[in-house]
Amino acid sequence: MEHKAIYPGSFDPITNGHVDIIERCLDIFDKILVAVLENPKKKPLFPTEERVNMIKEIFAGRENIEVKAFDGLLVEFAEKNDIKVVIRGLRAISDFEYEFQMAQMNQKLKPDIETFFMVPNVKYTYLSSKLVKEIFMLGGEVKGLVPDLVESQLQEKFKKSKPNFDI
Amino acid sequence: MEHKAIYPGSFDPITNGHVDIIERCLDIFDKILVAVLENPKKKPLFPTEERVNMIKEIFAGRENIEVKAFDGLLVEFAEKNDIKVVIRGLRAISDFEYEFQMAQMNQKLKPDIETFFMVPNVKYTYLSSKLVKEIFMLGGEVKGLVPDLVESQLQEKFKKSKPNFDI
Amino acid sequence: MEHKAIYPGSFDPITNGHVDIIERCLDIFDKILVAVLENPKKKPLFPTEERVNMIKEIFAGRENIEVKAFDGLLVEFAEKNDIKVVIRGLRAISDFEYEFQMAQMNQKLKPDIETFFMVPNVKYTYLSSKLVKEIFMLGGEVKGLVPDLVESQLQEKFKKSKPNFDI
Amino acid sequence: MEHKAIYPGSFDPITNGHVDIIERCLDIFDKILVAVLENPKKKPLFPTEERVNMIKEIFAGRENIEVKAFDGLLVEFAEKNDIKVVIRGLRAISDFEYEFQMAQMNQKLKPDIETFFMVPNVKYTYLSSKLVKEIFMLGGEVKGLVPDLVESQLQEKFKKSKPNFDI
Amino acid sequence: MEHKAIYPGSFDPITNGHVDIIERCLDIFDKILVAVLENPKKKPLFPTEERVNMIKEIFAGRENIEVKAFDGLLVEFAEKNDIKVVIRGLRAISDFEYEFQMAQMNQKLKPDIETFFMVPNVKYTYLSSKLVKEIFMLGGEVKGLVPDLVESQLQEKFKKSKPNFDI
Amino acid sequence: MEHKAIYPGSFDPITNGHVDIIERCLDIFDKILVAVLENPKKKPLFPTEERVNMIKEIFAGRENIEVKAFDGLLVEFAEKNDIKVVIRGLRAISDFEYEFQMAQMNQKLKPDIETFFMVPNVKYTYLSSKLVKEIFMLGGEVKGLVPDLVESQLQEKFKKSKPNFDI
Repeated sequence: MEHKAIYPGSFDPITNGHVDIIERCLDIFDKILVAVLENPKKKPLFPTEERVNMIKEIFAGRENIEVKAFDGLLVEFAEKNDIKVVIRGLRAISDFEYEFQMAQMNQKLKPDIETFFMVPNVKYTYLSSKLVKEIFMLGGEVKGLVPDLVESQLQEKFKKSKPNFDI
Repeated sequence: MEHKAIYPGSFDPITNGHVDIIERCLDIFDKILVAVLENPKKKPLFPTEERVNMIKEIFAGRENIEVKAFDGLLVEFAEKNDIKVVIRGLRAISDFEYEFQMAQMNQKLKPDIETFFMVPNVKYTYLSSKLVKEIFMLGGEVKGLVPDLVESQLQEKFKKSKPNFDI
Repeated sequence: MEHKAIYPGSFDPITNGHVDIIERCLDIFDKILVAVLENPKKKPLFPTEERVNMIKEIFAGRENIEVKAFDGLLVEFAEKNDIKVVIRGLRAISDFEYEFQMAQMNQKLKPDIETFFMVPNVKYTYLSSKLVKEIFMLGGEVKGLVPDLVESQLQEKFKKSKPNFDI
Repeated sequence: MEHKAIYPGSFDPITNGHVDIIERCLDIFDKILVAVLENPKKKPLFPTEERVNMIKEIFAGRENIEVKAFDGLLVEFAEKNDIKVVIRGLRAISDFEYEFQMAQMNQKLKPDIETFFMVPNVKYTYLSSKLVKEIFMLGGEVKGLVPDLVESQLQEKFKKSKPNFDI
Repeated sequence: MEHKAIYPGSFDPITNGHVDIIERCLDIFDKILVAVLENPKKKPLFPTEERVNMIKEIFAGRENIEVKAFDGLLVEFAEKNDIKVVIRGLRAISDFEYEFQMAQMNQKLKPDIETFFMVPNVKYTYLSSKLVKEIFMLGGEVKGLVPDLVESQLQEKFKKSKPNFDI
Repeated sequence: MEHKAIYPGSFDPITNGHVDIIERCLDIFDKILVAVLENPKKKPLFPTEERVNMIKEIFAGRENIEVKAFDGLLVEFAEKNDIKVVIRGLRAISDFEYEFQMAQMNQKLKPDIETFFMVPNVKYTYLSSKLVKEIFMLGGEVKGLVPDLVESQLQEKFKKSKPNFDI
């Protein structure tokens, strides 16, 4: 039996905290599907395609990882991809509450799909995509918080003109 | 590669919430090791051996589950048993904080062992071994909260004389 | 003395969790006033009038329940309706904090009005209007989460064209 | 129909925070039963009888309040006294979690008994029996935190010899 | 060595809770810099200049307090002003989590700048700028919650026409 | 004006998390008083005198730090030592709630004494004296979690015979 897991998120952009979770999952599961959420209700900094491509490039050459966009119910997307394990990172209580409710709701929608929560590496406890965007926007340094590719893409994004996005 | 997970706890006694977590894990992993904690700092209601035996009996005939007592560091016990995944149930924020700290500490002690947290089935959200013991001690009904075997063992325990234990 | 309580909320739309709270209050109080909040700062999926009418229809024939829209301070609306008890459901810590602050503020504004918090039936712990809208919008099944009337109204709403609302 | 509520607790000793909750309940309900918990697992500072008597004396002459000791399941004690409403004060998140679990468990044990949570008056937010005992034991001033009777009883208690109790 | 601290915030508008924190800091530090955040992502009720001027007027004649607007990274603004201590008020868990993450991030960006958190005076536990705006908007009384100057400015603001702002 | 702060705690034993807080305070304040709590209600692993001496030795030669035992009310001890600032580290929500209540209570007892909360360095987020004792007791490695002196004292303590202490 092949052991697969799906790791869903907005990844706007992917941070070193996300990368760490993915690397650790790749040690446990045979295959990881990184699922990039297309949220019609929120304007991202990076369009879905760019977010997918950044992750693909960061993990280029790794065979047990796949990256896809999705826009419906997570549990249906998981099922369509024949995956029974959803991975979520938990940083804080507020994450926890929302995730807890989503996990119990997903249990009701598809009882055979399980959500596993992981804690971040201690050095990324405070890290989030939102914080990265805020710091970058205010002229702060994000080296060490995101992969180099993401840092240069952020610079590209802000070089032309002030981007318009929901933080 | 065989996918194994360890599910540690006091199980004093095992509840239907624990049974539910184990059953769901058995759908995901090839093998589950239920590890019963011997805590020298706390007087249990059921001695370690009785707790181990109850779980063995409840899952009798299931081949992919093993039950053992342990009394040292969890991550070392996991390593000795060649297991890289620790499963923990999360019911509440207070669980979450302690578990979060333990998981980050364990990450430091053995970086290749991962902790995965699961949420309880919604119908067992409020359930804990502590609550079961309190209700039973006060003459309340625990049917539906614990396996039948545990219910009869509780009756046995309290029949003779008032047991002395830390709640 | 007649014992009355007010149960305020957005009810956009009413869920089975809300219905359960109302039913349980009807066993305790002589009369319940369901107060539907008109929030000028947020675009609802259902206009106030539709929200009021759905609740009226769901509880049609029940004499001890009344449904009204309101748009000012809750405590003044309660006072005008000669009610001293406000009922609020609490699902999670984040609810709790906000509700706690509102209750203490309301205590200052009108010291003789009391807020009573109730916990949801365990099977609705994870349920919220927001989650219902998200699931429906993504094509998921909401049967069992909302009254049948609400389900058909949701279908009606989304049939014509994609509705524009704040989630 | 007479509207009654039960307000259970350890009251070891009763504080001004408890008194405030009781006074506010007396404005809402026709009758309040203050139920003093006899906990065999914890050594109190004041024996049950003294705790009951202090509360009786504080509310002497008030006809709609009754004080009783109890030692079994709260919901059964409520039922025996023909009461359907349990009142609990909530000060903090940690209270909230435990109380939430107890309320959902009690719902399962006796579905027709409801728990209503109240927030403390803002000036007693930080107050607990435990804190009162700690401050008094360390020689601090508790005037304004507890009724005068309780203050003099505390002095009496500590005058003779260092009392032995679980904090 | 002069001991200075910076107290950053939106102050839209300043409340009595903020004033209390500032007064208490003025007893501890030689100098306080109140830093009014200009947030390009959020439409305030009072423009930055008005917020700065209100605070200046409230503390007029006090020599150890300074008020400035800022719009970049807080830690860089602190450094430019030669300040090593950031003061933040904490009202609730949700504050705490976000503030905790910001403080750890700031520690990484500028390790020699420290964040000190203070708790509000108990009588302002429930108070926030957001709540003040909500209550005022709904016709409620804000006397005692904000300085008199702020109350009259709020009246001015809402007199002309319904202001447009993010709550 | 000399700026002094008191840093109270059990320090049973002092960890690298505590050392980090002290070092950071020494950059901000002119003088730090480390106050070691003698708690008559809890049996420590290290007697008060040993805890005081370990801290003295760790900071030997540093002139702006003093270490003392205390056993009464913290705010009175601070006042006697002519100190107006109390420093507390916050690791988690559960810390936060208790600390918040203590700070508000202390504000009532001595309004001119302020409590400042600091967050731990991110690499010590999970660290506590309790966790150190548990890990050591179970045979785990505590290097990097406590100063070398503490590690050797722990070895000394456990060498002779199993120590009896409350965890």
